[in-house]
Amino acid sequence: MTGSSRESVLLHPLGTAAAPVPEMLCIFGTGDLGRSLGQRLLQSGYRVVYGSRRPHSCGPLPLGAQVMSHVAAAQSARLIFMCVHREHYAFLETMTPHLKGKVLVDISNNLKKDMYPEANAAYLQRLVPDATVVKGLNTLSAWALQNGLLAGKQVFLCGNSAEAKQAVAEMSTKLGLTVLDKGSLSAARELEDFPLQLFPEWRLPLRVAVGLTAFFFFYLLIRDIIYAYVEQGKDISFRITMALGNKVFPIVSLIMLSLCYLPGVIAAFLQLYRGTKYRRFPDWLDRWMLCRKQMGLIALGFAFLHAIYTFVIPTRYAVRHKLISLVVDEVRPNNKTTPFYFDNTEAWAQDSFYMLGILGFFLYVLLGLTSLPSVGGSLSWREFNFIQSKLGHLTLCICTSHGYIYGWNKFLRPSTYKWYTPPGYMLCLIVPSVVLVLKALVLLPCVDRTLTRIRQGWERTQPDEEMVKATNL
Amino acid sequence: MTGSSRESVLLHPLGTAAAPVPEMLCIFGTGDLGRSLGQRLLQSGYRVVYGSRRPHSCGPLPLGAQVMSHVAAAQSARLIFMCVHREHYAFLETMTPHLKGKVLVDISNNLKKDMYPEANAAYLQRLVPDATVVKGLNTLSAWALQNGLLAGKQVFLCGNSAEAKQAVAEMSTKLGLTVLDKGSLSAARELEDFPLQLFPEWRLPLRVAVGLTAFFFFYLLIRDIIYAYVEQGKDISFRITMALGNKVFPIVSLIMLSLCYLPGVIAAFLQLYRGTKYRRFPDWLDRWMLCRKQMGLIALGFAFLHAIYTFVIPTRYAVRHKLISLVVDEVRPNNKTTPFYFDNTEAWAQDSFYMLGILGFFLYVLLGLTSLPSVGGSLSWREFNFIQSKLGHLTLCICTSHGYIYGWNKFLRPSTYKWYTPPGYMLCLIVPSVVLVLKALVLLPCVDRTLTRIRQGWERTQPDEEMVKATNL
Amino acid sequence: MTGSSRESVLLHPLGTAAAPVPEMLCIFGTGDLGRSLGQRLLQSGYRVVYGSRRPHSCGPLPLGAQVMSHVAAAQSARLIFMCVHREHYAFLETMTPHLKGKVLVDISNNLKKDMYPEANAAYLQRLVPDATVVKGLNTLSAWALQNGLLAGKQVFLCGNSAEAKQAVAEMSTKLGLTVLDKGSLSAARELEDFPLQLFPEWRLPLRVAVGLTAFFFFYLLIRDIIYAYVEQGKDISFRITMALGNKVFPIVSLIMLSLCYLPGVIAAFLQLYRGTKYRRFPDWLDRWMLCRKQMGLIALGFAFLHAIYTFVIPTRYAVRHKLISLVVDEVRPNNKTTPFYFDNTEAWAQDSFYMLGILGFFLYVLLGLTSLPSVGGSLSWREFNFIQSKLGHLTLCICTSHGYIYGWNKFLRPSTYKWYTPPGYMLCLIVPSVVLVLKALVLLPCVDRTLTRIRQGWERTQPDEEMVKATNL
Repeated sequence: MTGSSRESVLLHPLGTAAAPVPEMLCIFGTGDLGRSLGQRLLQSGYRVVYGSRRPHSCGPLPLGAQVMSHVAAAQSARLIFMCVHREHYAFLETMTPHLKGKVLVDISNNLKKDMYPEANAAYLQRLVPDATVVKGLNTLSAWALQNGLLAGKQVFLCGNSAEAKQAVAEMSTKLGLTVLDKGSLSAARELEDFPLQLFPEWRLPLRVAVGLTAFFFFYLLIRDIIYAYVEQGKDISFRITMALGNKVFPIVSLIMLSLCYLPGVIAAFLQLYRGTKYRRFPDWLDRWMLCRKQMGLIALGFAFLHAIYTFVIPTRYAVRHKLISLVVDEVRPNNKTTPFYFDNTEAWAQDSFYMLGILGFFLYVLLGLTSLPSVGGSLSWREFNFIQSKLGHLTLCICTSHGYIYGWNKFLRPSTYKWYTPPGYMLCLIVPSVVLVLKALVLLPCVDRTLTRIRQGWERTQPDEEMVKATNL
Repeated sequence: MTGSSRESVLLHPLGTAAAPVPEMLCIFGTGDLGRSLGQRLLQSGYRVVYGSRRPHSCGPLPLGAQVMSHVAAAQSARLIFMCVHREHYAFLETMTPHLKGKVLVDISNNLKKDMYPEANAAYLQRLVPDATVVKGLNTLSAWALQNGLLAGKQVFLCGNSAEAKQAVAEMSTKLGLTVLDKGSLSAARELEDFPLQLFPEWRLPLRVAVGLTAFFFFYLLIRDIIYAYVEQGKDISFRITMALGNKVFPIVSLIMLSLCYLPGVIAAFLQLYRGTKYRRFPDWLDRWMLCRKQMGLIALGFAFLHAIYTFVIPTRYAVRHKLISLVVDEVRPNNKTTPFYFDNTEAWAQDSFYMLGILGFFLYVLLGLTSLPSVGGSLSWREFNFIQSKLGHLTLCICTSHGYIYGWNKFLRPSTYKWYTPPGYMLCLIVPSVVLVLKALVLLPCVDRTLTRIRQGWERTQPDEEMVKATNL
Repeated sequence: MTGSSRESVLLHPLGTAAAPVPEMLCIFGTGDLGRSLGQRLLQSGYRVVYGSRRPHSCGPLPLGAQVMSHVAAAQSARLIFMCVHREHYAFLETMTPHLKGKVLVDISNNLKKDMYPEANAAYLQRLVPDATVVKGLNTLSAWALQNGLLAGKQVFLCGNSAEAKQAVAEMSTKLGLTVLDKGSLSAARELEDFPLQLFPEWRLPLRVAVGLTAFFFFYLLIRDIIYAYVEQGKDISFRITMALGNKVFPIVSLIMLSLCYLPGVIAAFLQLYRGTKYRRFPDWLDRWMLCRKQMGLIALGFAFLHAIYTFVIPTRYAVRHKLISLVVDEVRPNNKTTPFYFDNTEAWAQDSFYMLGILGFFLYVLLGLTSLPSVGGSLSWREFNFIQSKLGHLTLCICTSHGYIYGWNKFLRPSTYKWYTPPGYMLCLIVPSVVLVLKALVLLPCVDRTLTRIRQGWERTQPDEEMVKATNL
């Protein structure tokens, strides 16, 4: 008898009846987040039931989801997602018997840090001591859930029950998420602070950028504007807004760009020195390497500002005024000391200077475009590497030449060194030059060969352990 | 016996035999769309069979799909996708007996509106009255199917059989789509007109932009060019192409940008006035809020044009001519009425004006970049909000200051008001100034506190209903 | 009894126990690629076991994966992924008995072409003759696997066992990949060379761009700089860097843009001539059509360079020098041959020229933006088509007018034709003009109607076969 009923199932015309009934998940709360989460769970093959105070008037829910009272919904599933504000957790107290043995997934966030004395998840656990609370998934937004932007996203979990965490982790993995276990429920506060962070990976690069900008701004303020006022009695303070900016921006941009490529060569030399790729880099180098993309994008931002500042130069009042003064002086009969002739070298130097700048900016923008997630994702690893490494170093090289040509005839002129200080562009050429020299050393055939072998897993010093570690790509 | 056969299944070496046989779906038509759909269905775990007139010569099909005659294919599945042009539906008439009880999913589109007296799906239902026709999925393109760009996309369904719609909806959900039921088959025409719409969400913003552009173009045409012709007898009609454009574009850009942020503050005041977030906004406000992104992007487009127009100014013939005339006048001995001196205030004002413009444009571009789907998708909700709200208002603030500085010394000059009309830039400062003042009011601590509570679910007037609605995030 | 045990399964609180145990897959190697692949397989519903020499110290592995010795891991799965460098395949020789009948999926790549005499997969098959080697998936990077960027990606497979390939293909399809069978294992070398290609689809467009750039560079070098030196004895070699570039870039950009749209009209005329859309285009036309996007993007790159070159013009030394000379000449009392007056026509022509250039560049950038994967993916097919076809031809039209206006008063001037050669901009107008004329012909109502019918499947000559082929979209 059992056999025949089985066969009939397999021959069912729709073919789906043979599939096992998918797991039922419960969501408390029918707000934006609850609806998006439900939609996404349905798309991943789960069944979804909403728990609502007023099951009959809770607005549009995803097609295929059921809606019941909180108690009924809780009874039909083992996993319950809390998509309710912390302020409204209190209603759970009245239904504690129905939540016994359930896994409550607390995905709530707060508006600010330290709004409450204890973490939301800890408060929830205190309210419903017989349920198992798992904190997690709280970095997902309703928007990302709705638009299916989950693939490859990392989410964090914490909780006191390994079994409950495992169930949530399996569910999350099916949604396409990558799960990281952060330990017991005491980590809940840390997890709740996570989504409140603003651009954590941008912090270090932004600090470097602000520091460099401030330093060069004051350095040039003293050298250019205060010097002119003190030594020549001229008030050229209007230059602060434009002329000074157009000096600071390219300087910071070039330094930031070279700081993108410096950790790479440091890492190469470290690997050469150690003779292995299997020892971890020091922490500072790791952190530095992780924010190279952000450094490069900030450098591109400064380069963009530099470009626009340059385009606007000829329309500026001060520049036009200077041009007119020049002509007026030129045509005055009594001012014929310097004959007005065309300096071919000057034309060559300046045009090359512009050409290198434009080419560098073009490559800069290209690098920026390939760092867009959707463009970078469409490249193969080798192509991405070619662009970010080969083209990146070429950009650095061109932009550094742009800087050198700018000062080509000023390096040896004593009047350049006002108050015995070098001009800004000289200072900014130091780091890029060092990076380029080090990179050139790394590219020497003999060094390159050793490095390639090390990166393929070869080790210089521990021949006995070599085989073991080297088997992994 | 049944028990042992069950065990043997679980021990099967491949491990897949234990899984139930997945549902078979049928596709009529082996063209581009049919192939892409089949590929995608296979990827979602279905089995696929193609129905073709010539099963042995129908080109490359996705790996794993079968191909049969139309009749044989129809018999092996319950759901049949029609990937055939409407003009060729006629062949179905000959096989009606084989389609009895099947669900025909009509995903066809037409090239133009009103090409045929009845909807494709209605025509199909008339041809095969014993089958159940479901219209839907017709907004999906072969390209999107091939490239797996379905996650989170919304598709519409309509049909007379709820059961058939349910089956199609389940299948669509498994493809990662979000399904919206549009009712009975009589809605088919509406669904078929959907993919023929061009940028529906851009219509309102584009109309506003065109209206504003036209108004300011004619306003400035009269004030600048016709005024000069009538009052001074000068023909400066050449200014229409460049000088006028460079006045209209920034004006429209700034107004459009402020129109992005106006509905937000209106909504805040409405919530404050109503004391709840649970009452729907009026329709016009809803529509306005939904097209803020498009408004902002159009504003960015106009700002981009403004920037390029500005960069090109100094190379223009008219500008160079004016410069030369100025110098020629200057050096003429008999024209020494106004001495040629350097005006420090003018330099400060103009350089600040440029600096604010450049900074504003930079932030504008940043806002535009984060509205790229792949960039926005990589931000957390808080980060996205920070950029679009904080940085957005900062941009508006900077661009408005850019406008104010432009006219700093012209506001009180009577010659500014030709024919008693204010210049364009004064008009364009009204809306942004209003938005900024209102936003400043909203940011006052006392107002902000109330608003935050309202947005967390607190309600002022209906204490009895508060709890019910407030439980949802 | 069996019946009751079945029921209890369905009522199991977790609901997952009813699901069949998913297939176990084995991965050899716990490096970056191995970990990312395992994570992705887990996300697709598989179970994963890692084989490692030191199962107890192999670093962090994806949550849910097991790790065992190589032998134990190999025994628990049928499919084994080799995520180990080819240099370390040797350890497999010691465990050949345990690999008998297993499918080894070789996903390895080499650093360079022709590093080894035989393909990695062939070497692997030689080492473990009793296993079935399938080569494939080697175009996937750890990065793409980690970030879930697999949807719609094409992967290649080859191997001698159809059954083994089928198993790998099914697994790949579940990961969202599109599989292409490349035949027997002898194709392994070809597959291994695949990821070593750099931008294969960019090659043809880049070659065309380099060819055109070189031709026009030397053409203009001779016509402008060498001509001036030979005929007038002037050294204007400094113009090579900027002035020449700003002539070559727009010329190449316009030609490349028109080459984007030329294959489309050729294809239309071919379809009209043949009277059917079902005959394949010649190979050269197919290849040309496949690289239109790349051609357009290169054209945009050149247009971008042209724009920046133009913006920088007025700050150039040579340009400022010329301006000053002009003024100095003007104000000299003895040089009053040409009176200095304002030429209204010149102002109109130049301003229109700039306006068209700016508008064209704006549309160019818009076209480029919609070709970003994430932007293009959010458009419907009709919208994408509207932008790329309608807006594309409009851009071509505007840019061509920009070129015509540039030379408006020079076409009939004999001095334009130095050494009897036409200037560069005249040459570059030929292809775009041809494309626009052909496109205009295609848009004639009578031609358009026929073409639309052909594209809907209608055929002129073979009425008997028409029906058969026409049934497919």
